[in-house]
Amino acid sequence: YPVFPQPILYSYFRSSCSWRVRIALALKSIDYETIPINLIKDGGQQFSEEFQALNPMKQVPALKIDGITIAQSLAIIEYLEETRPTPRLLPQDPKKRAQVRMISDVITSGIQPLQNLSVLKQVGQENQLTWAQKAIRSGFNGESFPLQTHPTLFQVSMADLCLVPQVANAERFKVDLTPYPTISRINKTLMALEAFQVSHPCRQPDTPPELRA
Amino acid sequence: YPVFPQPILYSYFRSSCSWRVRIALALKSIDYETIPINLIKDGGQQFSEEFQALNPMKQVPALKIDGITIAQSLAIIEYLEETRPTPRLLPQDPKKRAQVRMISDVITSGIQPLQNLSVLKQVGQENQLTWAQKAIRSGFNGESFPLQTHPTLFQVSMADLCLVPQVANAERFKVDLTPYPTISRINKTLMALEAFQVSHPCRQPDTPPELRA
Repeated sequence: YPVFPQPILYSYFRSSCSWRVRIALALKSIDYETIPINLIKDGGQQFSEEFQALNPMKQVPALKIDGITIAQSLAIIEYLEETRPTPRLLPQDPKKRAQVRMISDVITSGIQPLQNLSVLKQVGQENQLTWAQKAIRSGFNGESFPLQTHPTLFQVSMADLCLVPQVANAERFKVDLTPYPTISRINKTLMALEAFQVSHPCRQPDTPPELRA
Repeated sequence: YPVFPQPILYSYFRSSCSWRVRIALALKSIDYETIPINLIKDGGQQFSEEFQALNPMKQVPALKIDGITIAQSLAIIEYLEETRPTPRLLPQDPKKRAQVRMISDVITSGIQPLQNLSVLKQVGQENQLTWAQKAIRSGFNGESFPLQTHPTLFQVSMADLCLVPQVANAERFKVDLTPYPTISRINKTLMALEAFQVSHPCRQPDTPPELRA
């Protein structure tokens, strides 16, 4: 069996999709190297020929691991779960797994894509805040059902890896979180864990000094 | 072990996310009942109190199965895969599974959300076509890498269940498919299979007579 070098994560400190993967790597105690891809500098480093050869979707995160490169945060997390199962990020019962995947998908395909950098650019500066807020509120409302049962569902799951970065985005887009007490409570509990702290946008190799904490 | 009634799929004939699940059910020979949710009629039947109690995200598809209700197409397909593994829609090798999930995620979180009905409404009638075309082209371009290797990857996979409905949407939004010969070829091969035909929007219980084929 070939020995592969340390995994490399292509990441942007502020990308919520990158943060999801950073939490998974931290929880599973996987050592890795970060190669920062600045989505704004030089017109977006994700558009460089070098990076496109790695991920033709021109998006972060991408993870080089075990001799392959995987893009898309959930595909990466599911791969880590299948190859490094400790600690588990998905329950063992298929019904509970379905619930975790459902919450994850609501965030990754229902909310986040609508407040992606490339979409916000198209929407235009003056409409960005309203647009992003609408997407987040609509998703958070809908989540009340699965999230109400969430705390008893499973300890820390893939859904949490999606939730925390999404809440941070909600705060960035000035969404009032008062109507979502369950989400706020879960977020607070999770943010007390080390894996969520070391992976935080304010503590990455590419975090600008003025945003460090 | 309790005996559950026949699964119920809440579906809209034209919804590409519903179509993904219909293909999975057909491939796995799972009998089910369809309850049509018309996303346009009555201001959108997905907004009814009755349906919201089932899926607070107010979206189709939702599948009632084994005593639970699952929303989000990929969560549903992964559940079917875990509980009804024949025929497999995911390869057994984790690296190949990652590739299938990556292609699936590119479509379900990179392309489709941007041409969702609710988003197109916000974008406005006059901009819809350009907006949707841009999202589809950008995704199809990026896919060239995984899709080039796709035919040798695995027989019929979850990625195919995402691809075929997305190609149909591309045609609906008048995207010229000439630049994507691999996608067109895979799509044509798949559309020859019965499971892709019986699940097609033109053959559903709620397909209007003038759109039947």
